[in-house]
Amino acid sequence: MLLSEIATKLQAQLIGDGQQDITGVNTIADAGGSELCFLTSAKYVKTLSQSTAAGVLVDKPVDDCDMDQLVVASVDAALISLLKLFEPILTAAEGVHPTAVVEPTASVDSSATVGPGAYIAHGVCVGPDTIIGPNCSIGENTTIGSSCRLDSHVVVYHNCQIGNFCVIQANSTIGATGFGYSFVDGAHRLIPHNGGVILEDGVEIGSNSCIDRAKFGNTLIGAGTKVDNLVQIAHNVQTGKCCLMAGHVGISGSTKVGNGVVFAGASGSSDHVEIGDGAVLGAQAVATGKIEPGQTVLGLPARDVRRELKSKSVYRNLPELAKEVKQLGKRIEKLEATKNNKN
Amino acid sequence: MLLSEIATKLQAQLIGDGQQDITGVNTIADAGGSELCFLTSAKYVKTLSQSTAAGVLVDKPVDDCDMDQLVVASVDAALISLLKLFEPILTAAEGVHPTAVVEPTASVDSSATVGPGAYIAHGVCVGPDTIIGPNCSIGENTTIGSSCRLDSHVVVYHNCQIGNFCVIQANSTIGATGFGYSFVDGAHRLIPHNGGVILEDGVEIGSNSCIDRAKFGNTLIGAGTKVDNLVQIAHNVQTGKCCLMAGHVGISGSTKVGNGVVFAGASGSSDHVEIGDGAVLGAQAVATGKIEPGQTVLGLPARDVRRELKSKSVYRNLPELAKEVKQLGKRIEKLEATKNNKN
Amino acid sequence: MLLSEIATKLQAQLIGDGQQDITGVNTIADAGGSELCFLTSAKYVKTLSQSTAAGVLVDKPVDDCDMDQLVVASVDAALISLLKLFEPILTAAEGVHPTAVVEPTASVDSSATVGPGAYIAHGVCVGPDTIIGPNCSIGENTTIGSSCRLDSHVVVYHNCQIGNFCVIQANSTIGATGFGYSFVDGAHRLIPHNGGVILEDGVEIGSNSCIDRAKFGNTLIGAGTKVDNLVQIAHNVQTGKCCLMAGHVGISGSTKVGNGVVFAGASGSSDHVEIGDGAVLGAQAVATGKIEPGQTVLGLPARDVRRELKSKSVYRNLPELAKEVKQLGKRIEKLEATKNNKN
Repeated sequence: MLLSEIATKLQAQLIGDGQQDITGVNTIADAGGSELCFLTSAKYVKTLSQSTAAGVLVDKPVDDCDMDQLVVASVDAALISLLKLFEPILTAAEGVHPTAVVEPTASVDSSATVGPGAYIAHGVCVGPDTIIGPNCSIGENTTIGSSCRLDSHVVVYHNCQIGNFCVIQANSTIGATGFGYSFVDGAHRLIPHNGGVILEDGVEIGSNSCIDRAKFGNTLIGAGTKVDNLVQIAHNVQTGKCCLMAGHVGISGSTKVGNGVVFAGASGSSDHVEIGDGAVLGAQAVATGKIEPGQTVLGLPARDVRRELKSKSVYRNLPELAKEVKQLGKRIEKLEATKNNKN
Repeated sequence: MLLSEIATKLQAQLIGDGQQDITGVNTIADAGGSELCFLTSAKYVKTLSQSTAAGVLVDKPVDDCDMDQLVVASVDAALISLLKLFEPILTAAEGVHPTAVVEPTASVDSSATVGPGAYIAHGVCVGPDTIIGPNCSIGENTTIGSSCRLDSHVVVYHNCQIGNFCVIQANSTIGATGFGYSFVDGAHRLIPHNGGVILEDGVEIGSNSCIDRAKFGNTLIGAGTKVDNLVQIAHNVQTGKCCLMAGHVGISGSTKVGNGVVFAGASGSSDHVEIGDGAVLGAQAVATGKIEPGQTVLGLPARDVRRELKSKSVYRNLPELAKEVKQLGKRIEKLEATKNNKN
Repeated sequence: MLLSEIATKLQAQLIGDGQQDITGVNTIADAGGSELCFLTSAKYVKTLSQSTAAGVLVDKPVDDCDMDQLVVASVDAALISLLKLFEPILTAAEGVHPTAVVEPTASVDSSATVGPGAYIAHGVCVGPDTIIGPNCSIGENTTIGSSCRLDSHVVVYHNCQIGNFCVIQANSTIGATGFGYSFVDGAHRLIPHNGGVILEDGVEIGSNSCIDRAKFGNTLIGAGTKVDNLVQIAHNVQTGKCCLMAGHVGISGSTKVGNGVVFAGASGSSDHVEIGDGAVLGAQAVATGKIEPGQTVLGLPARDVRRELKSKSVYRNLPELAKEVKQLGKRIEKLEATKNNKN
């Protein structure tokens, strides 16, 4: 594809002749001679001169730049469009594969796809344009909306509701029974989990993540929330819209998460905690009590990031503080000795 | 089901006329007009007046309560029975699904179920009333007892022994080779894992968890132990009976865990550690040495919770402590100056 | 197998008559009367006298030892050979199972094995002697080299390259789309991941681990690197050769890891971090900036182990330090009072 054609498709202002044949997109450092690169921050302008890229995506023209430039309103937005132009073209799956098992009472839209070896239980409903990957297993009476993509080996248990435009990647598990036991008659007895899981529209789940079903009502993941790999979301958790949960996050039972909350890697919460809209939990932070809207927190137990960083900063020099205290002790001793001598 | 019928089934004392039709169970806060709620602690009594529930499960009668009451000896125990009355009714699986592959030397009890696409290798033995879910894979010579439930996509490797009444949820892996390498001739060489895994009776494993096989002998999970999602149990770990391991727990190789040990979320241990009966590891705690029976520990390395909380408490105000030390320094300086002046 | 035969196979010097029939290998503590044990460190010599083992593998003769000895140059190396002699013999899989689905444009070497229910997409290439386990799913145009073993339920997405002699254990996911979003027009929009994943020769991946595909270029795992269970390796990570990553490790996007780096359990890194050759990250350490070659680090943020341990050591006695500071304050007060009295 010519650079000039790309400029047209991205509605970008082209600086340069745009006659290069472009084969892909890469970072400034790694882009080869037929690849485009992109500038996400002014601080990388200097690195452009060392790049062999065929052109660069920018949000304002760069002076003294040898390569062609595509000037767009937002590099982030245009980069997505640009990458879509070069997405690998995969063979379209079609209909229900003959090796898939679809129970007779299940309803699979004629435009949906069910991969080899997948199992669709009784009463399941799969919406238009949804793709169920190879060897998936969808439990009884679960509904999956339109334009969803469930990759290979996804398991969704019974009585769950997956909205529209949802993505669940390989080996993730939705709707397993949560970790809820009562100690009765000398043993841990499972509390039946009669509830389900609801993923609202546009929820995306990574690979090997788990979202447990509710004891009562539903575990709920709000619209547009994105979940990374190996994330654990326990029974009866409720999340708001547009949250982000990075790898290894763990949210304990019945915790209520607001809208737009960000969980960094390996962060999480105790059970029955409330986390306000727009809160941010840093890496390994664990919310053990209420987190205020907009608050950024760190640590176990999680607390305001500024307080935690101040403590951490002293912590990092604790040996010096301890030494200082020891020396103060000696100086006091001397003063006391002087005083006693005088007495 | 009428509330009065439920009272009979739970052998509960009914306070009220019990003529409401009950459709389910929910929390005090969320129970709708045809749902029962339950009171697990006296501190929530006040919230009952705001509830629209049709009735409440209690362990002693509540005064001034508008709703009907079911008085039972133990709310925890009765709640389990109550929830079972309302469990969703799923289609019973039956026999070996025609798409399952069962090797001829495997033995599957006639009352057992093998789901679509499951693979049962040579010499496997599946006991009575056990349900093997869709697309499971059971390795050679593994035995699975009676009344077990393996959900979709569970993998059990060869030569493992699953007891009776065990549950393994979706996408969990039992018996993979552990992470044991020796550096020989310039590369990490795998140490063969000739051992297996034993899950004793009543063990329950969540989804996407891993229990590795042993190098020698067996990795052993004691009877009645319950394991949550995304838990890693390494080769040759031995756990006692009735332990609880929450999400993201990681127990390193050859660690010996006593009876009734509780691992909170993301806690774990180094390898070859001993953890005594009834010990409790708090969230993110890592046992790096022996933990005494009954000890509750926190931190990395894990130590007595009281000590750790005291350190943590000072830590949280470290900036103030550092400031105090600085001020003491200044006051000493002044005293020293006075002394010097006097000399 | 007679102990003397084993001595021959291991090219070991035999001390004793070697006429015992040996049935397996176990630790000094657990080896039964027909099992061999092994001595990896001189500090365990004393325990030999309590062992009932039939013989012991040593790297130099042990005095006053009742049992037969096999003296080898390296116990670690010989133990691997020894264990291989006793590996359970499993039924060899053969060819493509009739229930596997192999798309017509895929190429599976005639010496390779494809298990029941596995799905091999268009354009996939599977090399000689490679074993694809039951219910695996291999995405379009992915190539898998020779002598690899993919256990049950492994998912490899499209356009990935698995080298030779690689092992991927059950329920692991290679090549899922990474966690890369831009916030555009009021929602998190996925950045297309046009790149792939490369596992070089001899890479071994545990169970339920995830290696995400790259946005551009490839996520790269260097030759001989070994990855444990439940590990998350994000998009565009590049690792060197012969690294070790233990359970629950999480490496964020675009991080560059040198050769021979060791990640202990639940350690990890922020994104775009550089970790030098031979660095070691302790348990739960998180590299948030450059780690120098050969450096051992601990903590969040990770820093030199000696510094961190010194801080930790003071931390563990912080209550005493705080008390000391308080007492110093009182002593200063007294001194000040004396001074004031004198004035």
